[in-house]
Amino acid sequence: VIVALAGGTGAAKLLRGLARVTEPARLFIVGNTGDDLHWWGLHVSPDLDSVTYALAGLLDEKRGWGVRDDTFHCLEAMRRVGRETWFRLGDRDLATHLHRTLLLRAGGSLTEATGAIAQALGVRARLVPMSDDPVRTELRTTGGWLSLEEFFVRERCAPDVLEVVYRGAEAARPAPGVVDAIRTAEAVVVCCSNPVTSIGPILAVPGILEALARTPAPAVAVSPIVGGQAVSGPAGKLLAARGLDVSPLGVARAYRPWLDTLVMDGLDAAQAAALERDGVRSVVADALMPDGAAEARLARVVLEAAGATA
Amino acid sequence: VIVALAGGTGAAKLLRGLARVTEPARLFIVGNTGDDLHWWGLHVSPDLDSVTYALAGLLDEKRGWGVRDDTFHCLEAMRRVGRETWFRLGDRDLATHLHRTLLLRAGGSLTEATGAIAQALGVRARLVPMSDDPVRTELRTTGGWLSLEEFFVRERCAPDVLEVVYRGAEAARPAPGVVDAIRTAEAVVVCCSNPVTSIGPILAVPGILEALARTPAPAVAVSPIVGGQAVSGPAGKLLAARGLDVSPLGVARAYRPWLDTLVMDGLDAAQAAALERDGVRSVVADALMPDGAAEARLARVVLEAAGATA
Repeated sequence: VIVALAGGTGAAKLLRGLARVTEPARLFIVGNTGDDLHWWGLHVSPDLDSVTYALAGLLDEKRGWGVRDDTFHCLEAMRRVGRETWFRLGDRDLATHLHRTLLLRAGGSLTEATGAIAQALGVRARLVPMSDDPVRTELRTTGGWLSLEEFFVRERCAPDVLEVVYRGAEAARPAPGVVDAIRTAEAVVVCCSNPVTSIGPILAVPGILEALARTPAPAVAVSPIVGGQAVSGPAGKLLAARGLDVSPLGVARAYRPWLDTLVMDGLDAAQAAALERDGVRSVVADALMPDGAAEARLARVVLEAAGATA
Repeated sequence: VIVALAGGTGAAKLLRGLARVTEPARLFIVGNTGDDLHWWGLHVSPDLDSVTYALAGLLDEKRGWGVRDDTFHCLEAMRRVGRETWFRLGDRDLATHLHRTLLLRAGGSLTEATGAIAQALGVRARLVPMSDDPVRTELRTTGGWLSLEEFFVRERCAPDVLEVVYRGAEAARPAPGVVDAIRTAEAVVVCCSNPVTSIGPILAVPGILEALARTPAPAVAVSPIVGGQAVSGPAGKLLAARGLDVSPLGVARAYRPWLDTLVMDGLDAAQAAALERDGVRSVVADALMPDGAAEARLARVVLEAAGATA
C-alpha cells in the first residue's frame, strides 16, 4: 500500500489525483482529526470529510470543503432560533455528521464510522483517522486560546499565533492498522497540507513518528508552500509560529529526519541546494492543481519520486 | 386564560384561528407529546412543532406538517449513507430538532425547550407539552406493536389497531403550570384532534383529567369527525379501536364526563339529541377549515360556545 498522511482541502486534490492514476484500493490514507469539533451536538471531522467528499466526487470545488451545490437551509433556521452559525454546515453535509454521531453513539469507533461513511459514498481508498482517541489542535493566539476552527473560520486567521498544542495527543493511540500500514508501506506520501495543523497532529500521536522513522518505505512530501506563500489556508502563519521558514525548506524541516524527498514548485527551485544540505532530495514540479489533469500530473510525479509504479 | 388541549395538524388550524380572533397571549396550549420520537438521535415532537409552525406562520399547508417550502437535502443524503428516511425531516425543520435536542441535553426541560423554540419563532401564545416526562403512544396492531409514527407514517395506517397504550403515562407528571392553568381557566378548548392518539395521551397524564373534571371553566370540544369520517388522519380507525362511535357522539364520549359543549359540523346535526341525552350541548358550525377565514370563523364559534369574549 501507499500510505498518505492527509489534512483536508490541500490533501484532497492530491489524493484525488492519486486515486485517478493508481488503483484506489492501494491507498491507505491517515487523516487528521485535530480539527474535529462538536458542533450542534454532532461530531464533525472536517479533514476526513474533505478527503471523503473529494474521493467520492462530491467536494465543493469553489469552497474547498463541504458538498457541492449544498444548501444551507438548516443553518439559516438555526440562526433564526439563535444558534451560532459561524461554522457552516450545509444540509447534505449535515447528514454525514448525523450519521457519524449516531455510529459513534452506538459504540462504533471513529475508524469504523469513517470507513462506513466512505464506503457508503463509494470511496474505494481506505481512509482512517490518525486516532480513535480525541486529539484537539489548540492555538494560543493574541486573541486567547482558540481551536483550529475558531482560529481559521471564526477569526479568519486574524490573531497572531504564539503557540500550537495538540491537546490529548500524549494519551492517544494510532488508529488500528496505521502503524502496520506505515511499517509495510511501499511508499509514504505526505500530502500538501499544513505541516503544523494538518500533519503535525498526526505526527503527535505516539507511535506514528516512530513508525515513519523506521519504515523502509521512501517518504515523499509535497510542499504546500509555493513562492513563499501557502497555496491555501494559514500554513504560512503557523510555520512561522513554529519557528520554521515559510518555504519548502521549512516544510522539509517539519518532517525531519524521516523525509526523503520533497516535491516543490518550480518557483522554489532555488531551495534545492539548501534541501540537499538537510539531506532531503527535491523534485521540481508544477505544485498547483487547478484541475483534475493537474491533480493527476502531480500524483504521477509523487509516485515516481517514491519509486512506486502507477 | 383559555386552555387548549391540542394534537398536531388538526389542532394547528383552529389554534391559528384562535390566535387571530383573540389576544394570542391569552392562549395556554397543552400539546400532545405521545408521538414524540427519537429520530437520527434527535428529539422530535411532531405535534408541538405543527402547532408552533402554524402559529409562527411557517407551517406547510399542503402537507400539514413541517416548514413551508422546506427542502429535503439532508434526508436524501441520509438515505445515501443507508439511514432510514420514512420519517421525513426537512432541512429547516431539522434545525428545530437539533435546537431542542441541544436544549434538553444541556439540562433544560421539554417545557423550557418548547417555550424557547416558540419564542424564537415569534409565537406569542404559550405552548407547553402535556408533560416533561416521556409518554409514548403505542398501538398493538395486526402488524405488531407500533409507535404512533410507525403506524401513521411508515405503515400509512394500514394495520388494524387492537389496543392503544400510553406508555409511561402513569409515572408522568403534568408539565409545570398545566394543572393551574386548567384550574383557573376562563374556558377549556379541546381542539379538533384525534381523541385517542392526540388528546388521549394528554388525559392519561395523572392530574390533568382530575383538573378538567373540577375546573369551573366550561369545556368545549370541536369534533374532528365530520360526516362519519375523520377530517384528517386515522381518528376513525382509532375511535373504533377504542369501542367509540366514529361520530361526534363517539368524540363526546371520549371526553366524558367533563365536556360541556361539542362543536360539530352541520352534516352531523342529527346527533344533537343523542348528545343531549349524554349531557353534552351541541353547537353546529362549519367544521372544515380550508382557509384562514374559516379558521377564524370556527374559532369565534368556539369562544362563543365557551361563553368567552373574543
